[in-house]
Formats: sequence, C-alpha cells, structure tokens
Amino acid sequence: MSLLKLVLGRRLANEEYVERKISAFEGVPAMGLDGLGSSSYGPEAAMTVLLPLGAAGMAYIGMVMVPILVLLAVLYVSYRQTIRAYPSNGGAYTVSKANLGANASLLAASALMIDYVLNVAVGISAGVGALTSAVPTLHPYTLALCLAILVLVTIMNLRGTIDAGRAWALPTYVFVASFVLILAIGVYNTVAAGGQPHAVVSPPRSPNPTEAVTIWLLLRSFAAGCTAMTGVEAVSNGVSAFREPVVTRAHRTLGAICGILGLLLGGITYLVRSYGITAMDQSQQGYQSVLSQLAGAVIGRGLFYYVAIGSVLCVLCLSANTSFVDFPRVCRLVAQDDFLPRPFAAVGRRLVFSVGILYLAAGAGLLLIAFGGITDRLIPLFAIGAFLTFTMSQLGMVAHWYRELRRARPERERHRHRASLAINGVGAATTAIALAIIIVAKFVEGAWITLLVIPCVIFLLRMVKRYYSELDGQLREDRPLDLRDTGPPIVLVVTESWNRLTDRALQFALRLSPDVMAVHLMALGGPDVHERHRLLRRKWSLDVEQPAKAAGHKPPQLVLLDAHYRRIEGPLLKLVAATEKDNPDRQIAVLVPQLVKEHWWQYLLHGYRARRLRTALLRYGGSRVVVIDVPWYLQEPRIEEGLEQEELLGAHSTRAAGR
Amino acid sequence: MSLLKLVLGRRLANEEYVERKISAFEGVPAMGLDGLGSSSYGPEAAMTVLLPLGAAGMAYIGMVMVPILVLLAVLYVSYRQTIRAYPSNGGAYTVSKANLGANASLLAASALMIDYVLNVAVGISAGVGALTSAVPTLHPYTLALCLAILVLVTIMNLRGTIDAGRAWALPTYVFVASFVLILAIGVYNTVAAGGQPHAVVSPPRSPNPTEAVTIWLLLRSFAAGCTAMTGVEAVSNGVSAFREPVVTRAHRTLGAICGILGLLLGGITYLVRSYGITAMDQSQQGYQSVLSQLAGAVIGRGLFYYVAIGSVLCVLCLSANTSFVDFPRVCRLVAQDDFLPRPFAAVGRRLVFSVGILYLAAGAGLLLIAFGGITDRLIPLFAIGAFLTFTMSQLGMVAHWYRELRRARPERERHRHRASLAINGVGAATTAIALAIIIVAKFVEGAWITLLVIPCVIFLLRMVKRYYSELDGQLREDRPLDLRDTGPPIVLVVTESWNRLTDRALQFALRLSPDVMAVHLMALGGPDVHERHRLLRRKWSLDVEQPAKAAGHKPPQLVLLDAHYRRIEGPLLKLVAATEKDNPDRQIAVLVPQLVKEHWWQYLLHGYRARRLRTALLRYGGSRVVVIDVPWYLQEPRIEEGLEQEELLGAHSTRAAGR
Repeated sequence: MSLLKLVLGRRLANEEYVERKISAFEGVPAMGLDGLGSSSYGPEAAMTVLLPLGAAGMAYIGMVMVPILVLLAVLYVSYRQTIRAYPSNGGAYTVSKANLGANASLLAASALMIDYVLNVAVGISAGVGALTSAVPTLHPYTLALCLAILVLVTIMNLRGTIDAGRAWALPTYVFVASFVLILAIGVYNTVAAGGQPHAVVSPPRSPNPTEAVTIWLLLRSFAAGCTAMTGVEAVSNGVSAFREPVVTRAHRTLGAICGILGLLLGGITYLVRSYGITAMDQSQQGYQSVLSQLAGAVIGRGLFYYVAIGSVLCVLCLSANTSFVDFPRVCRLVAQDDFLPRPFAAVGRRLVFSVGILYLAAGAGLLLIAFGGITDRLIPLFAIGAFLTFTMSQLGMVAHWYRELRRARPERERHRHRASLAINGVGAATTAIALAIIIVAKFVEGAWITLLVIPCVIFLLRMVKRYYSELDGQLREDRPLDLRDTGPPIVLVVTESWNRLTDRALQFALRLSPDVMAVHLMALGGPDVHERHRLLRRKWSLDVEQPAKAAGHKPPQLVLLDAHYRRIEGPLLKLVAATEKDNPDRQIAVLVPQLVKEHWWQYLLHGYRARRLRTALLRYGGSRVVVIDVPWYLQEPRIEEGLEQEELLGAHSTRAAGR
Repeated sequence: MSLLKLVLGRRLANEEYVERKISAFEGVPAMGLDGLGSSSYGPEAAMTVLLPLGAAGMAYIGMVMVPILVLLAVLYVSYRQTIRAYPSNGGAYTVSKANLGANASLLAASALMIDYVLNVAVGISAGVGALTSAVPTLHPYTLALCLAILVLVTIMNLRGTIDAGRAWALPTYVFVASFVLILAIGVYNTVAAGGQPHAVVSPPRSPNPTEAVTIWLLLRSFAAGCTAMTGVEAVSNGVSAFREPVVTRAHRTLGAICGILGLLLGGITYLVRSYGITAMDQSQQGYQSVLSQLAGAVIGRGLFYYVAIGSVLCVLCLSANTSFVDFPRVCRLVAQDDFLPRPFAAVGRRLVFSVGILYLAAGAGLLLIAFGGITDRLIPLFAIGAFLTFTMSQLGMVAHWYRELRRARPERERHRHRASLAINGVGAATTAIALAIIIVAKFVEGAWITLLVIPCVIFLLRMVKRYYSELDGQLREDRPLDLRDTGPPIVLVVTESWNRLTDRALQFALRLSPDVMAVHLMALGGPDVHERHRLLRRKWSLDVEQPAKAAGHKPPQLVLLDAHYRRIEGPLLKLVAATEKDNPDRQIAVLVPQLVKEHWWQYLLHGYRARRLRTALLRYGGSRVVVIDVPWYLQEPRIEEGLEQEELLGAHSTRAAGR
C-alpha cells in the first residue's frame, strides 16, 4: 500500500477535483507534445518523398507545405468553434454522436482509440530511435529504453494530468524556445545575406535527381507531410481537463500548439530552401535529420546545438503523453454509453481514469515488445486515424451548424451560423481530401490494416453494448418488493474441527435458522481414522447437541463428508444439490468460518480453503445459495486504523445522509 | 482448467493411491539419478585435487577411492537397516526425531532441505554446463536451457513420482548399460593385455608434478570424492513412494543404486590407472571429462561413444529429479509436525505433495537465475548437507538399537541388535569423520555458508511452529456451545440501485432480521445528482417501504453514503463502526449482492466492487461483522455440470455418512 502511495501519491478526495484541473501552461506539454514533436518529422517525411527529384525537390517543398499550413489554419479555426460549441467535450466522438448518430460516433471512437495506441508505440520508438542513433552505444537497449519511457509516462499520468504536464514543461518549453530562436537567427541571416546565407556547418550536398516531378509524387509528399498535423485534435478530446473558464483555456492551449507548430513548419520550410537542405536516407551511414542539419547550418555545433537537439529527443520520446491525456477521456465517454467496459468510466485514485491509462500502456507495451521497440512499419497505419477523426468531427460540426441555422431566428445569429458552417464545411472538405490522398498513397504500405481493424473494433464495441443491455434487461425491476414468506434458510456450517471458530459460526447459524447442519470433511485414511471420527461425534454430542437442546434449539446435525478428490467443494455442492431437492422452496446459506490473514506471510502458512470454497459455491451454487463469511481474528482489528491505512478515510468526514 | 488437465493429467481420486506407488524399476530413475550421476563427477573431483602430483597422482587415486567405496558399503548396509526399522519413512528427519529429539530432527531437516534445493540448481546447471561444452553453440542459452529442464522436471513430478520415474527410465538404463559395458570391455582389455591395455584414443599426457604428496592433499581429495555418495540417502526419504511390500522394494532400489554406483566407481578407478588417465583443468581449452577420456580410450569415438556420453548428459541434467521426489516428502513430514506451513502436507491433484514441488522449483529457479545458470560456486556448499544427514541418521539408529537392546529379552534378539548397533555405529563414526574432513577441507570455499544458513532455517522452522501453537491455543475450545441469546443481527444491504438483485438481497435480509438498512453510495456530483437521489427515494418508498409495511415487516431504511474517495468501503465501515457502537450486543451482517462472473471476459467488463468490499469488511470489520454473498446469475448454473468441469466429481460417488 505504501509503495503505491510513494509512486502515485496519496489518494485524492473528490473535493480536490478543482485543484487538479490544468491551465494552458500545463496544457501545452500535456496535450501538445504529439503536435509539436511532429514538426520534427512531418517536413522531413514530405522531403524524403521528394528525394528522387534531387536539388529540384527543394523548389517543390513549398508547394507541399503551404497546403499543409493552410489545412492547419483551417483545423485551428474549426476546432476553436467546436470547443466553443461543446465546452464539456469537443472530441470527434461527442460531436459525431450528437450530430451524425451512433454509427458515425463509433467510427470516430474506434479511429481515435487505434490512433492513440499507435501514437504511443510509434512516438516512443521514434524518440528512442533518434536517441540511439545519436548515442549508438545505447542501441542494444532499444526495447528496454522504450519500455522504461512507457512506464515513466504511464506513472506520471496515473499521478494525474497536471503532474504529467508539469513534469514535461521544461523539455517542451526548451524545445520551443530553442527552435524559435534558431529559426529567427536563420531567417535574419537569410534576409541579411540577400537569400543566400552562409551555413556554419554546411549540409551535405543533395543527391542527383533520378525522377522527374509528377502530381502523384507531390500528392504522396503531401500525404507524408500531413503527419505533421496529427495531434491537433488533442485539445478537443481533453477539454474536460481544463480549469474554469474551460473554453478560454482550451482556446489558449489550442492556439499555442497550432501557432507554434505553424511557426515551426513555416520556418523550417523557408530555411530548408534557403540553406539548401535535403532529407537524407535514414538507412545510410552518417544519416542526419533535417532539424539537425538545419540547427548545424544556422548555429553550428556548439552547446546550444546539443541543447536544442536534446530537447527534440525529449519531445519525441514524450509525444506519447498526448495519448495518455486523451485516450482515457475518450474511453470514459464511450464507456458511459456502455460501448466499453464500465470500469473505463471509473475515477481512479488520483482523479484520472486509471483503467484507460493502464489499457493504453498495456496495448502500446505489447506493440513495442512484439516489434522489439522498432515500430517503423506502423507509421503508415496511423495518420489515417487522425484524418478520419478530423473529417468526422468537421462533418459533425457541419450538421450541427445546419441544424442551428434552421432553428435560429434573428438574422445576425443566422449570419454567424452561416459563417461557422462555411468554416467547418471547408474543414470537412479539405480533411476528407487529405484523408483520401493518405489512404491512396499509403494503402499498400499498411493503411489497409487500419481500414481492416476499425470495423473489428466497432464490432467489439457493439458486443460490449449488447452485453450490458442484456444484463440491464435482466436486472431491471419494475415490481414492488416481493415478500412471499418462504421460511428461514437451511444453514450449512463448514467446520474443520470443534473449536472457537466453529462455536462462533454455530452461534450465528442458530440465530438465523432452526435448521443447522455442520459439515465436516472425513480425514484421509490412516490407521486411527475411525477412532478419530468416533471421538468427534462424542464431543459433538456433548458440547453442541446437548447445550443446544437445553437452550430450546433444534440441535445442529453433524454431517461427515467423504471427499475422494481431497476438496470439500465437490461433496459440499452435492449436499447442497440434495438439500435443495428435498426442500424446493427454501434458501440454503453456507457458513464459511475463516481465519482473517492480517500479514502477507500468513498466506504462505494457510491454504486457500475458505476462498476456494466460497468461489465454488458462488460460481455453481445457483441463486438459492448464499455464502456467509464468518471471520476469526488473531488480533481484533480497529476499523478506523484499517481505513487510514487503506487511505479510505482522510480529513473529509463521511456524512450519512437521510437516516 | 483444461490446460491444467492437459499438462498435469486428470485429477486423481484417493482410491487411485495404490496404483500410483512405484516399484524398483521406476525407483531407480526417480530417486537414483542423483546418486548414479555423481559417478561421473565424484572420481573426477578427487582426481582434480591430485592433479599437482602429476602422473604420480594415479598411484594415489586408489588410496582415496577405496575408503570411499568402503564408506558406500557401510552406508548401504546401515540404510538397509534403517528402512527395515522405519518402513513408513526412514529419512534422517524421522529417525532423529524418534531417537534424538526435536532439535536433532530440525538440524537434520534443515540440512536435508538446503541440500535438496542446492542439488536441483547445481545438478541442472552442471548438466547444462556439460551439454554446452559439448555443443558450444548452445552456450548463450545456458540459463534458458537450465530453466527449461527445471520446468520439465517440475511438471513431470507434479504429474506424479511414477510418471517421472517412467519418463526418465530410458536415459537412466541406457547410461547404466553403456558404462557397465565400457567398464567390462576395459577391464577385459586390461587383463588380456597384462595390465597395459592399448587405448583406442589415447588420453592426453598427464601434467608434470608440481607438488609432493601430503596427508592434507589426500584428505582434500577424499572430501572431494565424497560428492560421489550424495544421493545415497534418497531412498530412505522416499520410502513412502513404494508399492507394497514397501521394504522389499525400497531395499531392491537402494541395492540397485548402491550396487551400480559402487561398480561404476570401482571400475572407473581401476581403468583410470590402467589407461593412465588424469583429470584435466576445466578452465583450459580442449578440456575433456574423465568419463569422456575413459570411453574414448576403451571404445574409441564411434556411435557408441556418443550414445554413452549423451546418456551421461541426460543423467546429469535429470539428477535434480531425486530432490523432487524427496524434498516434498521430507517437507510433508516436517509440516505434519507444524514446523513448516501446513499446505506442504496437503495431497495435490496427482496425489503428490504439489506445494513442496513448487517451492523446490521456485527456490532452485531463483538460484539459477541469480547465478545466470552457472552455479559452480555452490558445489562446495552442498556435500555438507548430505553428510550431516548421514551422520544424524546413523546416530539416530545407534540410539534406536541401544534402546531396543535394553528392552530386548531373548539373547538371539539381543545379538541381532548388537550387530545392528555395530553397523550403524561404524556408519556414524565414518560419516562423522568424512563430514569433519569435508568441513575443514571446504570451509573457506563456501562450506561456511551452509553452516550459517542451517541455523537460520532452524530458526524459521521454529517460528512457524510458534505461530501454529499460538493459533491453536487461541482456537482451542473446551467449553460447550455458548448460546446466550443476543437477538438477530442488524443487516446492511449494499445496493447500487433498485433492481432485481436488490430485491433478492432485501428478501433474504428481511428473512434474517427485522432491522435492515439498504446502503447506497451517493453519485459523484453532476448537474442532476439531487434529482436522481429524490427519484431513488420515491421509488424506494413506493417499491420497498410500503410493501414491507403491508407485509408486517419493519420497513428497511435507505441510507445514502457520501464517498469522498470514490470507494464504498470507507463510509460503509464507518457506518458499521457507528452501528456497533449504538448496538453493543448485536452482530452486523453486511449483505453484498453480486453478479457471478461465468466467463473470463466478464472480469474485464465489471469492476471488483463486491470483492473489494468483502475483503475490506473481513479484514477490518472485526468479529461482530459477517459478510453475506448473494449471487446473481445471468444464466442459472447446474451444480453437477460445474463440478464435472472442475474435476471435483468423478466416477466415485460421495457418501454422506451419519446423517
């Protein structure tokens, strides 16, 4: 217990909810690392596709990146609207559920969930990949490093979104500050040098062209570059994490993330062209990332270079955090609609949805282990999820504004709605087009897998819903309490020998019912077994039957059972079945006296007889059987002390209302 | 469940006990692998110590091995006597308990237990070491191979001693046949060649002498060679595994093991001298074991050579099996005296003491993992245990015969007892001397560790005994049943909402007591929380209170609890404490209605609320609280089907005696 407290912090009371909410300062590291980190690989991905054009590729990178920047702006504006319209949660699931119906919302939910799991595995492995290529001696520890980072991010998020946000604030803001500075210096140098700046460390020469430009190549480059935008939806899914005024803080966070991302993307595109930087083949010796070449060209290889590149590594490794903030919140909404297991909606020890966090970590951990920490091949799978969600969310907003428009009376309001409709309409159209391009461009590389998995997830969600509906249907009760009198239960007391524990159990049993049977397992063979049974019967008659008779009770019967398989469960359940048959309208209560284990080592010193017995009785006994646990303590516990130890009773007192 | 059945076989009934007993045919592989395997390293260990003498060492090997053979003969004769005198179990623990008292028996038990755990780790790692030096490509998998063999041996022994004995019969008898044949050929060649046989493959030349012979060197060589005798006590500890007539079969097994071992040791010693074979330094390139040199010299490197050496590897790897047969049986005896946890004495699924097998596997597994599968350094630790047990057992027998002698009347009987006393006296003296030599010779190498660990184990055994004595003291009941009337319990019913499960629970509660409170956890915040509570109260009043009043019951109260920590345990236990305080002489029954999980996936779809609640109530509630589990089934179970699935009900019917 105290280990849990050490790692996760003390259990938080409901009242502390407000203090656990975040502002934009924590919001950017918590939700923005995915988006900001993508600035380091998005442009590079687009440039890599253009590599066959050689130096001419540089001329075309602008043609690819400008539409991406426009798309980013459209997304920013439309997500601002969405957050304002759905201030409690503006994620694709909520928006499409409200406007497009259950099927669309499940499509959005499954795309989102898949995307978030992939993002964790791919983000961490990419970060560690960058780290091990910078420090090759770490290469043998790739998987271990990946898992260590996964555990770290998981723990920080189990502690709470605000803890994670604060923990990652330093690397995030160092990254932002470094690159804004580098870009500023670079732009200044370029302008000062009349467009031909001098590189401190010259980037390698661009390769010779091997292909001519085609529309298809540009489209593929665009699709690759679009990965720079995954993570933009993060704020909308995490709105509920913000402090009041929620909308303002969410807007501020979204603005900061999109603004910085746009600045970085724009600056990188501009400087790549002016410094003549091309992407390098990652599988070749001496590979350098575009950001590393750029930083080297602008500021040389000094301390500042290493700080900047170090912050890129941190941001990449921690980009998984975005998933940890959003995945549990999305799952919670889906679980509240019964499409996911209900524990996903349970508020955990630290007021976050711990179950979702653990499932996410488990899923990503399995992916990392399965791929040995190298999840490169999964990258094509995961832009699809993001753009599918973008499109669903935008389409949902279009439907929303259309409906609002039909309802709105004053012309001014209608005007505003029309403008909003237009913005989301443009958003929907552009993201849909981008999605189509991505699917076509990446279909063979693995996008088909995502397209296959999504319907499977939807099927699972529907199965969960069906289960809960059936369960609720069976449990629903519209009649008043049924009080037909069927008499007291028949009580079976499981005994091991005649001792104080049996005494206590029999006392309780006789208070419940006049029909009490004590059930005893016959000893396994041995020379003196009959003698022992005879002694037990005599003791029983003297110590139990006679006092019970004297007190006016019907004396409890002693039943000796023969267990051929050395387990009492079997013969006892048979006895239960026989008793049920003989008494068709009575309930049977099985009393299980048990020693309460107060220390861990007692689990080694005792069997699990009581637990096994209870489990078997509950599992197979049927609805006429109840199990009564009668505890025996070596040392009588004190309730208050126990609760304090379990952290279930803090400074907040418990009111018992309405007694 | 069916996986367990597949791996371990079906659950066996008590009646099948007789069929599971073994004869000498299975006894030799089951208990003898340790002893027989030691012929491959015992002489080699003695010869390694003599290495500094160079070729002259060969002359002295006889001086070392002859006392060892004599000791073996003494042990054989005295263990024969022990088995006859203690036909149910003739192990050192039983013998010293009966004749030397509790302290001596605990000393014997702890020495035995330590020895058996070490034997598993050392045996398997030595076997795998031999294997990987024969097939060097396997070297990187040393630990994995060790653990795989451990798992295999564990599973075979969990299936039963007879299964393990049958499984290892082939390698055991191939080993015996091969080496008896090789030795026979070798001896024939030697005699035929007048003492100077021609080696098919010449052994490497012996190194130059670097030291002169000393008594100390010979003693150390003797101590090293004594490892050839560990495993001789195995039969005495495993007597209970044999079929009737037990003594005959045990004698036959002991005779076979000692006879073969003696033959091998004698033959090896003879041939080593005639072929001029010396031990080689194991750390040097090109190392060959003595047995490998010998086989090569006698029969060359043909198919037969590889069969023989392969069988040595198998025998070494499987020598751990001896521990798996005896350790659980020794632990069972110790546990029956309450010095070890009682589950050690429980007969498992396959009529063996599964708990002991699992502890042994876990202990050896930890040792293997801690030492990375190379447990060489542990070898000096473990002959001590064996010789300490020999000595204790012999001393016990001396005391036994001495007492018998004083009781015996007819002179012929006294005569026989005197002879027995003499045999065990010689045994005790020789093993004690050997033990002293081993301790002195190996003290620095690690024997001191064993001498340190033994008292620690004895301390633990005593602590276990103390715990059980205290427990039994508290539980002992010598008064008749106490039947002071304290009225019906106060029943608290834990509800989640008003549904059929609550209905069932309330019905049962009202049958137990007039004082029923339904406890409901208040919802966590939200805009409509008050409205929901108001609705619940109204429904309660209509559907529960009014019908209960109409039926003449005191209407159950509805208590709404506020859980600041989102767990019902805290506030409920507080309510229990308050109720106990208000009603100082009444018991409190907490009724926990719960959905029974029939499929594994239901564990993912539901929380663990009922289990957590039950655990907290039993752990901290105190002895005035009982917990009543009321099950709810999605599909009503059938008792018989369930029991068949759990293998708790076979062909054997259950008699309910004495009803």
